[in-house]
Amino acid sequence: MSFAPFDWIDDEARRRAGAGLVRSLRPRPAETGPLDLASNDYLGLTRHPRVTEAAAEAARRWGAGSTGSRLVTGSTALHAELESELARFCGFEAALVFSSGYAANLAALTALTGPGALIVSDAGNHASIVDGCRLSRAGTAVVPHADPDAVRKALDGHPGRALAVTDSVFSVDGDAAPLTALAGACRETGAALLVDDAHGLGVLGEGGRGALAAAGLAGADDVVATVTLSKSLGSQGGAVLGPARVIDHLVNTARTFIFDTGLAPAAAGAALAGLRLLRDEPHRADRARAVAAELYERLTRAGLTAVRPDAAVVSVRAPSAHQAVTWAADCRAAGLAVGCFRPPSVPDGVSRLRLTARADLTARQITTAVATVVDTAPRAAG
Amino acid sequence: MSFAPFDWIDDEARRRAGAGLVRSLRPRPAETGPLDLASNDYLGLTRHPRVTEAAAEAARRWGAGSTGSRLVTGSTALHAELESELARFCGFEAALVFSSGYAANLAALTALTGPGALIVSDAGNHASIVDGCRLSRAGTAVVPHADPDAVRKALDGHPGRALAVTDSVFSVDGDAAPLTALAGACRETGAALLVDDAHGLGVLGEGGRGALAAAGLAGADDVVATVTLSKSLGSQGGAVLGPARVIDHLVNTARTFIFDTGLAPAAAGAALAGLRLLRDEPHRADRARAVAAELYERLTRAGLTAVRPDAAVVSVRAPSAHQAVTWAADCRAAGLAVGCFRPPSVPDGVSRLRLTARADLTARQITTAVATVVDTAPRAAG
Repeated sequence: MSFAPFDWIDDEARRRAGAGLVRSLRPRPAETGPLDLASNDYLGLTRHPRVTEAAAEAARRWGAGSTGSRLVTGSTALHAELESELARFCGFEAALVFSSGYAANLAALTALTGPGALIVSDAGNHASIVDGCRLSRAGTAVVPHADPDAVRKALDGHPGRALAVTDSVFSVDGDAAPLTALAGACRETGAALLVDDAHGLGVLGEGGRGALAAAGLAGADDVVATVTLSKSLGSQGGAVLGPARVIDHLVNTARTFIFDTGLAPAAAGAALAGLRLLRDEPHRADRARAVAAELYERLTRAGLTAVRPDAAVVSVRAPSAHQAVTWAADCRAAGLAVGCFRPPSVPDGVSRLRLTARADLTARQITTAVATVVDTAPRAAG
Repeated sequence: MSFAPFDWIDDEARRRAGAGLVRSLRPRPAETGPLDLASNDYLGLTRHPRVTEAAAEAARRWGAGSTGSRLVTGSTALHAELESELARFCGFEAALVFSSGYAANLAALTALTGPGALIVSDAGNHASIVDGCRLSRAGTAVVPHADPDAVRKALDGHPGRALAVTDSVFSVDGDAAPLTALAGACRETGAALLVDDAHGLGVLGEGGRGALAAAGLAGADDVVATVTLSKSLGSQGGAVLGPARVIDHLVNTARTFIFDTGLAPAAAGAALAGLRLLRDEPHRADRARAVAAELYERLTRAGLTAVRPDAAVVSVRAPSAHQAVTWAADCRAAGLAVGCFRPPSVPDGVSRLRLTARADLTARQITTAVATVVDTAPRAAG
């Protein structure tokens, strides 16, 4: 047998090793391990008994899988309930649930544009948006990060369908997009606005209703949002929120909806329970933001370079990819899990530690986390 | 506010309505509804107590969500256990679990090819393969359905990386790909072979080990498979199976792995329970194939036009999209759920009823299903 077809993989692996960019999986145990400032469980709901029991109950009542495409056998009344409550909570007319936020972004971008259309995309947008632009076969103009004037210029004069797309909160640095100005640029030019609110839902807006609600854009006829069910809501999956006609259009045309198995009932049930918890306990959203602000203040006061957080992500600069890995490993050895973002996950090539501010962190845990990050910092990190 | 950005959607909706191609969601209740010959629950495992209890237990023990990317906090020991047992069962060196089969196909195609590479893709391949080809930025040659000579010709002489990709069992017609001949074409030309075994796992091969095991190709150095956890295994998610270096390469480079939240613990636990059930009860795979053969024999004997099933999908031709919809609706009114495939889900434009042969269908249910499909058939369906 020829070994040739995959021999190039070994060369790439050697190159990665030389550049300090090897990634490997470290499966975690079920029992509580290190102090977690690495997950996206912003509200601390993923292990909340109401959420885990809802998952268990949904699996028992509806089955472990949805059994097919949402258009065949994969839509349950539980999916419909989740879609209805999610849309209402966030202030949109309708919602459509996907098996992931990735799939939701691919769906929205491909179904709402197409050949001849123009997509104007922020340079810092998430990988799933970049992939959605590629899949759409629309023309794509990538504009500088958080620059509404650049968006307006790129949209101006395009004769066909046009859409600007942005993360609401950028995953790497935790900074927020200028949504009001972006909506203005879109409306001046007749373009639609698509906002990925993965890191805003549950954290921004009144009671965590998200960045679109905070900006007064939720429910507008020319605005579509995508969200994840896997971050603040503690579950798995994604959704598109928008005008009912947009949602109907996705049901009829979005390939990652039509040709994917529906979200498992356990995940739909857990997301619905997470959403209801958030509705019942709106202070969780405020608390996540307050924890982020406190982490930022204390880390920068200690001499580290961080980005002022607009939501619940605190990004701390590392001098190099190698040192970021060592720093994160030293934190872990000291009992603290933090994210470590390196190329190619960072568009600008700058490696970071990424801390997530969970609403359920105690004052003592915050103090421990800050002390650990500061004590393990490489010399050049200031 | 301008309503303009999405006005074109209404025009498209009217066109769809005129062509009889409107799709809409029909959420199902939790309690057993119609007799199900529409789902992909081939082995009847999605409501098996061992599977649903495993989902419930995993949610309780590990949380309702995985909380992050598999590379950050989203890998649990449960994911690792599933990957290890799945690879061993199917005869591969290693496996990597994704949140969907769609994501697994996008990952394999993009990470194993790239600009300058050539992908040779069967005209009947699943939408996720088509999208993976587009995303990969490789050159793609679409070849006639199930035609190894065409694959060899398309691969011949390509100077760089090359990969042929095929479904093992085609979702629409239920026919099997000529895997041995395809592997021969790949080996003659130095290309890799990627096989989507979504509809083969649990149905084909000894004890349901899949189409690759059946063809003696599992574990080969030049062969990669993708599978779903959402069909025979009764859960949600997908996986890539292959040589360990290929799996390591995906961990390091596949965007739908790196930038997606890990599969929910409940889904991983349910898939693992489904896999163990299949291992313990290998007759389920034989039974699914036997049910399909019986459905085919009885439907064609009654005068309908169907494709001889190679796995557990039985495809019955309908005279038109309109009549396919009416036929499926009449079946449903009579208490039988069947799939209805219409453009754009069918590459050749021919609409079909799609029946899935579940291993747990009783003789009486098979008789009822056949009688219902035959009694409701449009006149031109013979």
